[in-house]
Amino acid sequence: MANIAVVGAGAVGGYYGARLAQAGHDVRFLLRRDLEAVRARGLQVFSPAGDFHLDHVNAVATPEELGTVDWVICSLKTTSLDAAGPLSAPCVGPNTRVIALMNGLGIESRFSQWFEPRQVFGGMAFVCINRGEPGVIHHLDYGRVSIGHALDDPAENELLRALLESGNIETVVAPNLRYARWEKLCWNIPFNGLSVAGGGIGTATILASAELRATAERLMREVVLAGNADLAAAGSEARLDAEEVIPRMFTLTGTMGDYRTSMVIDYVQGAELEVETILGNPVRRARELGVPVPAIETLYAIVANADRVRRGLQPVLTGADLAQPRPVHP
Amino acid sequence: MANIAVVGAGAVGGYYGARLAQAGHDVRFLLRRDLEAVRARGLQVFSPAGDFHLDHVNAVATPEELGTVDWVICSLKTTSLDAAGPLSAPCVGPNTRVIALMNGLGIESRFSQWFEPRQVFGGMAFVCINRGEPGVIHHLDYGRVSIGHALDDPAENELLRALLESGNIETVVAPNLRYARWEKLCWNIPFNGLSVAGGGIGTATILASAELRATAERLMREVVLAGNADLAAAGSEARLDAEEVIPRMFTLTGTMGDYRTSMVIDYVQGAELEVETILGNPVRRARELGVPVPAIETLYAIVANADRVRRGLQPVLTGADLAQPRPVHP
Repeated sequence: MANIAVVGAGAVGGYYGARLAQAGHDVRFLLRRDLEAVRARGLQVFSPAGDFHLDHVNAVATPEELGTVDWVICSLKTTSLDAAGPLSAPCVGPNTRVIALMNGLGIESRFSQWFEPRQVFGGMAFVCINRGEPGVIHHLDYGRVSIGHALDDPAENELLRALLESGNIETVVAPNLRYARWEKLCWNIPFNGLSVAGGGIGTATILASAELRATAERLMREVVLAGNADLAAAGSEARLDAEEVIPRMFTLTGTMGDYRTSMVIDYVQGAELEVETILGNPVRRARELGVPVPAIETLYAIVANADRVRRGLQPVLTGADLAQPRPVHP
Repeated sequence: MANIAVVGAGAVGGYYGARLAQAGHDVRFLLRRDLEAVRARGLQVFSPAGDFHLDHVNAVATPEELGTVDWVICSLKTTSLDAAGPLSAPCVGPNTRVIALMNGLGIESRFSQWFEPRQVFGGMAFVCINRGEPGVIHHLDYGRVSIGHALDDPAENELLRALLESGNIETVVAPNLRYARWEKLCWNIPFNGLSVAGGGIGTATILASAELRATAERLMREVVLAGNADLAAAGSEARLDAEEVIPRMFTLTGTMGDYRTSMVIDYVQGAELEVETILGNPVRRARELGVPVPAIETLYAIVANADRVRRGLQPVLTGADLAQPRPVHP
């Protein structure tokens, strides 16, 4: 059994941490919003794979209380990516392995500034999961984690696979981490992005609109082009196959009901959006590579603006504005 | 002096009709919202070119009251394009000329179904203008009208130019109507579209955001490509020059202050957006021509959705939705 620290235990970290704790690992959760509730009542997971409850949860408020562990699962929102190093560092010793269980691009490069690259992994969770009231996690569907090691070491990947599978977590070792990141972006860019650009809509609304659906497909095609150029530039022979990935993403999404993406939940709640890691970094990487991604760029501009608007950083016009007499000679 | 009927006298029709009336033409206005105010108090125009007031305005509620005229200026919102024929027809005789003073693409083809093509003109107003309280029009800046005849008859264009210039309206005869439509779309697509996709923002906000500004430029480039393909397909030798048009549009917009596009005003007021003529028709024409317009397509999908959302036809998620317990096993 391993010692595991979950840093940033929102829906994703809470769920996977709970699965590993259920399997008998010593899991310690660094919590903020749910700290008191989890200390008082434990952690409740509702899941199609079986509901369960952890009665006694090692929940702490500061990283120093976590102690040095074998594995860190860092599942902070990437809007707090700068804090991931300082928050994880207190539990990282020379033999600790750190999994960045986050969406977006440009994640492991940051972790490799804080820790030895040989200690760093990336993970992408294909899971439908939402937080409920404090201490409650609603696992709705799926749960597979796609993993990769920062140096693409197969032996290291097998260690992480074994850990996750011990918690009954379906695990896929990606051809490489870069591939896994772009594959996940094939879903995150269209569905997170359009759910916000659409003003706060679920996945079913995107699929039901011919134009939004076509836009989602166009976005995926651009992600595949940029991702394959990135893989080629890195000397990898792995490639995303648009004719395989795109139908798979649509089929997957079609079974989700009117799923609320993590980004739309943040948007509705007025929280900061993961716009830079999910949209901005892929756009910037595509530009570096000279790959045109006009649909992604358009979506990025609109979602970044929506983020500013929702958080009150960018005012929008109101009926009261229109009723104001305008300067006649501007 | 000519008899002129203004069908759909909003900001644009009201302003140009008032200019022509000021010059002594017999102008009759078909009004809806402002009918009573204009009958009671006339029409007030505030303008940097000189404020003026029309004391006695021939304002009517039904097209039958307009009588047969020399010129019809049809300046309905294109969301009412289907009504333009029936509303204009009562004042169209065999010698009447009809100007579709509207934005977007696919306008004259409709008018040419209702009237003889030799009777049909198109006009695009480059003007910053907003309606104030009923009976008041705020002309803010500019005012040039770019015109074309449905059959590109130079003699006909000169007749329309003479009419407009008699009202001190700066008039440019476009190389052809198709050119004029696409040129205007170089402004309308980015600025109308992004003002709505941005959640209700003015032109200054678009220019101030590096990403939105870059998106506006990208949209213009796609408009130029599609427009030039459309011109070539029609056998015209006229071409839009991106290197001339794009800087001109940005320079123009930079002098407008935080201008509120007609589409953003509709959006804020919850009125139907001119999304199909300004975005949908250009996208469909580009598809017919095989010209990729991914940024315009993305914007079209987002603005069409925003239109549905704003008019209550497409619900969006709220905090209350998120607080609802989710079905655990979807």
